[in-house]
Amino acid sequence: MGETPAAGAAPVTACLIIIGNEILSGRTQDANLAFLGERLNSHGVRLAEARVIPDHAETIVATVNEVRRRFGYVFTTGGIGPTHDDITAECIARAFGLGFGANPEAVALLQQHYAPEDRTPARMRMANTPEGAELLENPVSKAPGFRVENVYVLPGVPRIMQAIFELLAPTLVGGVPVLSLTISSWVPEGVLGVPLAELQLAHPDVEIGSYPYMRQGRAGASLVLRTPDRELLEAAAKDVRAMIRSLGGEPLAESETEVGGARNATQ
Amino acid sequence: MGETPAAGAAPVTACLIIIGNEILSGRTQDANLAFLGERLNSHGVRLAEARVIPDHAETIVATVNEVRRRFGYVFTTGGIGPTHDDITAECIARAFGLGFGANPEAVALLQQHYAPEDRTPARMRMANTPEGAELLENPVSKAPGFRVENVYVLPGVPRIMQAIFELLAPTLVGGVPVLSLTISSWVPEGVLGVPLAELQLAHPDVEIGSYPYMRQGRAGASLVLRTPDRELLEAAAKDVRAMIRSLGGEPLAESETEVGGARNATQ
Repeated sequence: MGETPAAGAAPVTACLIIIGNEILSGRTQDANLAFLGERLNSHGVRLAEARVIPDHAETIVATVNEVRRRFGYVFTTGGIGPTHDDITAECIARAFGLGFGANPEAVALLQQHYAPEDRTPARMRMANTPEGAELLENPVSKAPGFRVENVYVLPGVPRIMQAIFELLAPTLVGGVPVLSLTISSWVPEGVLGVPLAELQLAHPDVEIGSYPYMRQGRAGASLVLRTPDRELLEAAAKDVRAMIRSLGGEPLAESETEVGGARNATQ
Repeated sequence: MGETPAAGAAPVTACLIIIGNEILSGRTQDANLAFLGERLNSHGVRLAEARVIPDHAETIVATVNEVRRRFGYVFTTGGIGPTHDDITAECIARAFGLGFGANPEAVALLQQHYAPEDRTPARMRMANTPEGAELLENPVSKAPGFRVENVYVLPGVPRIMQAIFELLAPTLVGGVPVLSLTISSWVPEGVLGVPLAELQLAHPDVEIGSYPYMRQGRAGASLVLRTPDRELLEAAAKDVRAMIRSLGGEPLAESETEVGGARNATQ
């Protein structure tokens, strides 16, 4: 991926492809997007888009080929297990026009992990990768993920995906992480709206998001300020606090993180 | 859209566009995809893809224009509130080349809901729609969603999105809902793999998914069978149960639904 971008350069972006009929049918709630969104940012990579697609070969191939040219990094989750509906690895080979078959290094890993009588053809299928793929170590259940160029292929099970990601994350070449500061108050969005829009215009390099909430029948809003630049962040935060007070409110507990703010269960 | 498709016709598809920086940053966990995946299927509409995109006008316009031609229905969630970062409605107008401004019917709804002193410019902004849009009733907080051709524009707050969806759902023209039957056992995927692949070949019109799980250190798998045809479903289920027994397992509690099976917290 070349050299580390300078501060102020275009942000390093990523696209996540979530592969699985079970996510689209509503059977399974995805948990990987929120994790990767936060963790990528802490390495200076901005998750710029995510797609959820079915276990359908043509769709997987076309989606990978579209997004790998448009984003700095691509991550896929799902579809690399031992059963017939696990077709992601083969589709990645097709997308890159590469051969596909048993990866000797992956075969060795699985042979270490499984006793001879447990080396079923289904399990050994997990050693198939596109030709020349770099393996990504799986400290939980051994069957590795892999990388081809800027495409990182990870399993869907969150615990295993996360463990593989944490081992590969130090190799990511990102920009400056986005700093995020959340300022909440009981001033509702309908009152904040116009002054907040003016404040956004005055701070064009700070992304200001407004997220309404309702607690015990009372409406409030969390304002989330995001920028890689600490000085710009603090200047905007000062103005946001003053705006809230000018509207008769009081800024509430603030949280600042490098990884996108505290998790919130609702939109 | 047109007439109700006959059984066996190409399925009616939908694409969901989830709009919001807060989803991509990991700050907020999306809850709308799983809900819409299940509920659309019960109306015979298959959620075939979802995209998560930022609050960025060009991206919203381009995504809407790409997917509205490829899918029977498009739903968007997020970005229709009263603040400056709510840009979805304006982007829908741009995508369709329509004028954008105060919708008289929506203005009347908000005037009924808000006392004169509460009719802030920010709140009244929620009455802006593309020219000619059909309003979608919001029984919770009045500010309506809207529809332009096959694109349904909904808010991101799950409780409000769901209430609007339930009122519009009877107008959807879908095909036959997919029936889903889940059969679990303690036979792990590594043992199931090859016989299950053969079983899938023998039942090409039943989509068979395999989802591993681990409980108290013991590995099992849930096999999910999906088809709109009850006879095909039962024939495949019979073979799946026999396969599990032939591998020394016992089929466990089964669940059958029209809406994609029981929710599962992990992949």
